[in-house]
Amino acid sequence: MTVADRIGQERAALQMINPAPFNAEAPPEALTGDLTPTELHYVRSNFAIPAHDGTLEIGGAVENPLTLTVDDLRAMPTVDRAVTLECAGNGRLDTRPLPTGEPWGSYAVSTARWTGALLHEVLRRARPATGGVDVRFEGADHGAYHLRPVLEETRRDDLTFVRALSLAHAVDPSAEILIAYEMNGEPLWPDHGAPFRLIVPHWYAVASVKWLKRIDVLTEPYTGEFQTGHYMYEWPDRPHKTVDYMRVRARITAPAHASDINAGTCTVRGKAWSGTGPVTRVDVSLTGEGEWLPARLEPPKGPYQWQDWSFDWKATDVGRHTLRARATDAAGNVQPDVPPWNRLGYGNNAIEVLYVDVH
Amino acid sequence: MTVADRIGQERAALQMINPAPFNAEAPPEALTGDLTPTELHYVRSNFAIPAHDGTLEIGGAVENPLTLTVDDLRAMPTVDRAVTLECAGNGRLDTRPLPTGEPWGSYAVSTARWTGALLHEVLRRARPATGGVDVRFEGADHGAYHLRPVLEETRRDDLTFVRALSLAHAVDPSAEILIAYEMNGEPLWPDHGAPFRLIVPHWYAVASVKWLKRIDVLTEPYTGEFQTGHYMYEWPDRPHKTVDYMRVRARITAPAHASDINAGTCTVRGKAWSGTGPVTRVDVSLTGEGEWLPARLEPPKGPYQWQDWSFDWKATDVGRHTLRARATDAAGNVQPDVPPWNRLGYGNNAIEVLYVDVH
Repeated sequence: MTVADRIGQERAALQMINPAPFNAEAPPEALTGDLTPTELHYVRSNFAIPAHDGTLEIGGAVENPLTLTVDDLRAMPTVDRAVTLECAGNGRLDTRPLPTGEPWGSYAVSTARWTGALLHEVLRRARPATGGVDVRFEGADHGAYHLRPVLEETRRDDLTFVRALSLAHAVDPSAEILIAYEMNGEPLWPDHGAPFRLIVPHWYAVASVKWLKRIDVLTEPYTGEFQTGHYMYEWPDRPHKTVDYMRVRARITAPAHASDINAGTCTVRGKAWSGTGPVTRVDVSLTGEGEWLPARLEPPKGPYQWQDWSFDWKATDVGRHTLRARATDAAGNVQPDVPPWNRLGYGNNAIEVLYVDVH
Repeated sequence: MTVADRIGQERAALQMINPAPFNAEAPPEALTGDLTPTELHYVRSNFAIPAHDGTLEIGGAVENPLTLTVDDLRAMPTVDRAVTLECAGNGRLDTRPLPTGEPWGSYAVSTARWTGALLHEVLRRARPATGGVDVRFEGADHGAYHLRPVLEETRRDDLTFVRALSLAHAVDPSAEILIAYEMNGEPLWPDHGAPFRLIVPHWYAVASVKWLKRIDVLTEPYTGEFQTGHYMYEWPDRPHKTVDYMRVRARITAPAHASDINAGTCTVRGKAWSGTGPVTRVDVSLTGEGEWLPARLEPPKGPYQWQDWSFDWKATDVGRHTLRARATDAAGNVQPDVPPWNRLGYGNNAIEVLYVDVH
């Protein structure tokens, strides 16, 4: 089988929304288990799958520049974490006015088990120099990109996917940022960043740089297209801000939107997650009337993964019913009815509204 | 066949959203033709189908009170008009925050051919007294109703469906308000207001009182639950206002939302209508980028009915595409991206956004 055939096979079960660069949503069933099988995990890329020579350079303002291979990373202490990743643009299609950007529905979210070395240990070995501020993560992926959608004059053919984190975040052992080389117990697939990638728990997945090629400690704050151009909350009424933590959100996974069900008890189920602390409650509304009822919320099975919730609904009245679920996290964040609109459509965590026709 | 069986048969093809009172959307195919077959025409009722003795009283501040039967109405000059009716709550499910009220999707709109006598001629025969201000239209339907949803203490068991129009509007020959006794060439069906109903062209259908029982000329402005309680735009930031003219709106009838289509030329089709003048243009957007392209708009086939529009889309790029259609009417009204939110969710004419996956 050719590499192209293999990649095609790996993509077959996804809902493709863009062939080049390849972007695809998970199918709805990907949200039902604790972990999303790799072939059902959503894929977000800003450029085509790049060539990668298998090495990772760590440099910039460090006392001990390093060049690591996957074997070097495997020789370090191994950490294994289930991490929910969500695209910052997930839910963009539900935002009004419709923003520019990839037309993500609601399935650019998945949870996989990632295995790798800890970023802070790699950085400790490289010994950041005094005066470090940010850490710059460069992917091997690069190509043409429109700084502003549509406008031809904003096209640049020489962009590389680069994101940065603060040095304080990058070296924080409790952040458990991984340089991951396995996903669900297998070497990374090309679409997911082979041979290795960053995994930044709790952050929108744009921070989890795929096809990781270079890490540089910087003594100045980092500026770049994917940090301060795109992936910015451009609100109309307050200073712009780069996309960071995943916003608290609940999804209803059963029953399906616009489905027909028989009258009787219906267990409404779903997932909930947040980048700002575990989800502490999920409430359900079964009418359009603003009455919220507490759902059963399962405790987190790990620090970085979605939680299950459920609610036994006595669906005795035939007719159309509206279902909503609203999550609250430990930091007190709660989902809004309407998220603050931002020009590029990031971070839509508005309360999901679906309906079911009971017969 | 019993009456109940007959009514059940008449309702079979509709998407029921409430069994009692019976409320049901049209199926999507109801929007494809010039006229909606009666069995596919949406149904909106505030109370159960009432008994009706077959007479219509015209009284109040008139010099010549009348009692008319359907035969009396048939003896008057006959007018026949295709009229697009839309429920004021159509599209409520797409409004955020989710308002209270019947959970209408987007199919509480239909067009039928209505036959009847002209209201202004009936009123002329009754000779309104000087000092008339409003005309009150009472349906035979009545029962229990919640003045404010959910709150038990607001329930009233003694409400009747009553709406009013200004006398000036009611007696205006150019308004062509009908007392209709036929729909699509047949006597009215029970769900559509048998034996006769008002048809108020250009207005949201709440004005088109079904099961019409009494008409009274009033010398004071009318106040009532369905005029100044419900069916009010309760905006947060300006004076409330009763629901009146249908807002300009375009719908995309093909391709279907979230459908898969083959790459190639795809004719995007739809309907457009407005209560404030014929639709004068429809524009289509095929990207999320704010570029709008003019669609072919067919001229109106009559003064009160939806218009056809279409656009030949070269759907050559595989992947997900967003489709939008935006109508403008002769008064210069244009559909908004987001309608001004109102508590009861009326008049949602926001630009429709759908997506199609091209393979």
